[in-house]
Amino acid sequence: WQKVYLMTYQRNIAKFWEWGRKIVCVGRNYVDHCAELKNPVPKSPLIFLKPTSSYVREGSAVKIPTGCSTLHHEVELGIVISKKGGDIQTDKAMDHVGGYVLALDMTARDWQDVAKSQGKPWSMAKGFDTACPVSDFIEKDKISDPHNIKLWLKVNNEMKQNGSTKDMIFNIPYLIHYVSTVMHLEEGDVILTGTPEGVGPVKSGDVMECGIESVISMKFPVQMKHY
Amino acid sequence: WQKVYLMTYQRNIAKFWEWGRKIVCVGRNYVDHCAELKNPVPKSPLIFLKPTSSYVREGSAVKIPTGCSTLHHEVELGIVISKKGGDIQTDKAMDHVGGYVLALDMTARDWQDVAKSQGKPWSMAKGFDTACPVSDFIEKDKISDPHNIKLWLKVNNEMKQNGSTKDMIFNIPYLIHYVSTVMHLEEGDVILTGTPEGVGPVKSGDVMECGIESVISMKFPVQMKHY
Ligand SMILES: [Mg+2]
Ligand SMILES: [Mg+2]
Ligand SMILES: [Mg+2]
Repeated sequence: WQKVYLMTYQRNIAKFWEWGRKIVCVGRNYVDHCAELKNPVPKSPLIFLKPTSSYVREGSAVKIPTGCSTLHHEVELGIVISKKGGDIQTDKAMDHVGGYVLALDMTARDWQDVAKSQGKPWSMAKGFDTACPVSDFIEKDKISDPHNIKLWLKVNNEMKQNGSTKDMIFNIPYLIHYVSTVMHLEEGDVILTGTPEGVGPVKSGDVMECGIESVISMKFPVQMKHY
Repeated sequence: WQKVYLMTYQRNIAKFWEWGRKIVCVGRNYVDHCAELKNPVPKSPLIFLKPTSSYVREGSAVKIPTGCSTLHHEVELGIVISKKGGDIQTDKAMDHVGGYVLALDMTARDWQDVAKSQGKPWSMAKGFDTACPVSDFIEKDKISDPHNIKLWLKVNNEMKQNGSTKDMIFNIPYLIHYVSTVMHLEEGDVILTGTPEGVGPVKSGDVMECGIESVISMKFPVQMKHY
């Protein structure tokens, strides 16, 4: 005879990286960043995916995947979804936001350039292990206006990216709306909202430090995956 | 006074679609299918992602996303991963396979064609809601040789795809190895191994039926998402 306890398993939104199922990324969401990579300013959000296996947390290194010659940093504001929904209207969109996260959209730029020129998917260039460093979860009320925060990134103490989310082309409610009309959003999903100008390469031995001004910062060393 | 029961939460591999975190897809893995879409035969596997929000089960319809004019069926053998691993060697790869699934890699072909021509990601074309119909979980021992099974698909009772996994370009151990050198695999992840020739459009009102000969079959009606 054995007693069985049925429990509902309560997932902790503050540890979304352990169980969240989707990372939706927005490309080219800042005019100056479009210009620096010689891309046109998009008429609708450019959407791609990272796998959740690419999450990495402070205390571990970002690893340059084998065969990648140009690994780029992109500092971004991430939105953590707390409520399931599809076809979410813009005026309800912020109800689906549970909080924020500081994130890096690490990009194997050489792989992405080949993919772009051959019409192939970006998934490997954006989805390798450690391609998505994330900070601690940021409570929603810690950021009163997510469209007016400063994002910065330094490599070896030198400022490389220093932008403001007020320069986003598509704002957060519109991004939530747009994505959810095609793929529904679930609790624990993350939307990375794009990077301001100043992206560039990092090499083994470099240290990246980035932050949201007055809110949070994080630091990651860069290593080769195999050496 | 309240008694608290601490439990380890045992996830059921036979319901991977409820909690699995990654769908890794292989494109152009059958020579005849490369030819029909006028794509070159790849020298290494072409990898892309679907979000797990695209899973759909029998009893629901496949829905044509709003704005898609050409929705294509692609019948595929799916591999369900049961053991975490990165840099998995080919001779150990089958140890990471927990079972199989019959799947459809539904594709908004018009969206994909635009993405390919503009060097943009495939994520929306491959990742919309209902883009990944899956059968019941197939126990590993139900398929003695996964490289010699027949995959078929009918639209409105007319045979459209009728191929064999013996015609895969890259076999299952190699795919597991290749993917895991870039993104580690976790329990509940699925790899879709590509489609044989015969892909084509479905429209609202059509019924797709597909199967793995002597093992399993499934049926999905097609509807417009909004109408
Ligand atoms: Mg980015
Ligand atoms: Mg992609
Ligand atoms: Mg396919």
